[in-house]
Amino acid sequence: MPDISRKGLQMPASPIRKLVPFAEDAKKKGTHVIHLNIGQPDIKTPKIALDAVRNHNIDVLAYSMTEGSEEYRKKIAAYYSDNKINVTSNDIIVTTGGSEALSFVMGSIMDADDEIIIPEPFYANYNGFATASGVKVVPIVSNIKNNFSLPPIASFEKLITDKTKAILICNPGNPTGYLYSKDEIQQLAALVKKHDLFLVADEVYREFTYDDREHYSILQEEGLEENAIIVDSVSKRYSMCGARIGCLVSKNQEVIQTALKFAQARLSPPTFAQIASEAALETPKEYFDDVIKEYVERRNVLVSELQKIQGVKVAVPQGAFYCVVELPVSNSDNFAQWLLEKFEIDGNTVMVAPAAGFYATKGLGNNQIRIAYVLEKDQLVKAVHILGEALKVYNEG
Amino acid sequence: MPDISRKGLQMPASPIRKLVPFAEDAKKKGTHVIHLNIGQPDIKTPKIALDAVRNHNIDVLAYSMTEGSEEYRKKIAAYYSDNKINVTSNDIIVTTGGSEALSFVMGSIMDADDEIIIPEPFYANYNGFATASGVKVVPIVSNIKNNFSLPPIASFEKLITDKTKAILICNPGNPTGYLYSKDEIQQLAALVKKHDLFLVADEVYREFTYDDREHYSILQEEGLEENAIIVDSVSKRYSMCGARIGCLVSKNQEVIQTALKFAQARLSPPTFAQIASEAALETPKEYFDDVIKEYVERRNVLVSELQKIQGVKVAVPQGAFYCVVELPVSNSDNFAQWLLEKFEIDGNTVMVAPAAGFYATKGLGNNQIRIAYVLEKDQLVKAVHILGEALKVYNEG
Repeated sequence: MPDISRKGLQMPASPIRKLVPFAEDAKKKGTHVIHLNIGQPDIKTPKIALDAVRNHNIDVLAYSMTEGSEEYRKKIAAYYSDNKINVTSNDIIVTTGGSEALSFVMGSIMDADDEIIIPEPFYANYNGFATASGVKVVPIVSNIKNNFSLPPIASFEKLITDKTKAILICNPGNPTGYLYSKDEIQQLAALVKKHDLFLVADEVYREFTYDDREHYSILQEEGLEENAIIVDSVSKRYSMCGARIGCLVSKNQEVIQTALKFAQARLSPPTFAQIASEAALETPKEYFDDVIKEYVERRNVLVSELQKIQGVKVAVPQGAFYCVVELPVSNSDNFAQWLLEKFEIDGNTVMVAPAAGFYATKGLGNNQIRIAYVLEKDQLVKAVHILGEALKVYNEG
Repeated sequence: MPDISRKGLQMPASPIRKLVPFAEDAKKKGTHVIHLNIGQPDIKTPKIALDAVRNHNIDVLAYSMTEGSEEYRKKIAAYYSDNKINVTSNDIIVTTGGSEALSFVMGSIMDADDEIIIPEPFYANYNGFATASGVKVVPIVSNIKNNFSLPPIASFEKLITDKTKAILICNPGNPTGYLYSKDEIQQLAALVKKHDLFLVADEVYREFTYDDREHYSILQEEGLEENAIIVDSVSKRYSMCGARIGCLVSKNQEVIQTALKFAQARLSPPTFAQIASEAALETPKEYFDDVIKEYVERRNVLVSELQKIQGVKVAVPQGAFYCVVELPVSNSDNFAQWLLEKFEIDGNTVMVAPAAGFYATKGLGNNQIRIAYVLEKDQLVKAVHILGEALKVYNEG
């Protein structure tokens, strides 16, 4: 049998995937599993987006433009302008989800063995894209004690080598829920300019900021035009994860022209999804007001319920809809599996995402989990109750 | 300014892209450009596929399964079974176009500096995916004189090194239109088994075979289960290039499980496109009968008109809807540009794809072009007339 690639062997599997069979078994036994593990919002997709697809008048479902249609990119530029980010349609490449934008960025700015510094915990798939590109992730630890705020710039500086090409942040953060302040972004901006690096920001949760905090985009920072690359997506913004539309944004035309060559190889982004995404830009402001009000309430309920459990630490999220929680267990992988295999209250149990998969440093995050608060408040209360009772039994057992 | 990657610099631009501004200029001057350069069929997408999307009842456009829904994959397996290819839903990963399937294959079986042997001329984007993966394309020349049939196995064998991981074919071929015979496939099968290589077949044009010739898939070949990987797509089959749905098929579960990790990183294929593609499988046989009848007529008209031009050689296509044509010019790049810049008959000119971009060996294909016969017959006649007159002027000038 021919050998698969070393790269293929190294590709990380989804950190949740190994729990899936246990969740399936639990369901087969009749247990109801409350999913705290998936970042799939339950919020309805704006009707205007879904209707646009219902009303399509396509005869021949042809390739679209490689970089996305001029009309759609102009509307995206207008959206950014509304968000104080000044870009034109020429600074945007429409991609198949934020995933593809990230993959184009890795290809365009990094070669095999180049290094990208990422504060951990971070979105697990960054590891996947880095491995696929043969690129080395250099993690820098952020701490639950200070809500996963930016590690000191001096610690970043210690990690910079002649292989370092970029720093990647997710803002607001998945899985941390942390929102970087303007000051933190400016510190990073000074750092990347000093060392001639790219600053890549995954800003797919831009809209989801709470407690009157405002998102500060790396492309709002003057003088960072040549260094800044944004990865964006409609997935979370409009609760349309299944569309698979995102974009790559940069004022650096060398980056755009290079990424375009990667885009040409895959021909075009999906047409129906572009129709939905273009229409979604007309979503009224009230939709977001309602959604954010709902997420804030959910977060408040979740955090206050979690804080009632002894031995539990919560990083209070200021954005996105995730929350990293420290539990009084030594291995949250085992605990998550045990929850699905052995525990239930009145026929209910909980599935959580063990946090170790969000760290690149081995041994970190073993006592942490990520919770996505994309469920109704009563479900969250119930889930946290189960979690609390489960911890009592687990730690006595 | 930070440096982009060496890989980014090496990425090939689309071979047609540099002609696009000249085509735009011609159109601005009021010249009608007949496009022989694009593999975008004018055939209507089956109504059943388009209607399925019109009638969607989605509230929350959620992620689909990473590997595509079980239901859709079961239907794809049934489609293969109808085509004498015995696979199950577990042997299939639904991808975002054949492009993504190819990119997953490269990642799963090849590491940086590994080699993949490809008969040239080949689909230009193979170069792009290879460069993106850091993989080396080793071309083996096939010849217009014998319709681009399989080069002798001995020539393949000479190219095999300890870096060789796979042989990639496109069957029927883009840009050649050549359909490999059962005997040729069996020769390749014996070769890859002997040297423990993968045989990757891009079979996206499977349905488009002419003159009562039958397509023989690499997965029909017994004993090749562990070596064979198919790249497939709905794009051409159902004239739905804009859907962006394809799949990767292999009986080798190590390949499937590895490719699945690459698939997990990008979450899921597009949902609306999967709805259309699943419905497209219900397309009645008559649709294909009509389409193939049409393509055969177009091919016949195209070839017989081309053969009337002095100094022109045509490889008669037995499948797909492309045709490589040798012209009495030394540089078809320049000729293609000249056609757009300087030539017109009654306000019409022609855009062709210079063939050099389909070769990896520098200097080959300079006197060839690729024509896609995805236009009505009268347009093809008109286009070839223009081409013939243009050649007279060009070679006299």
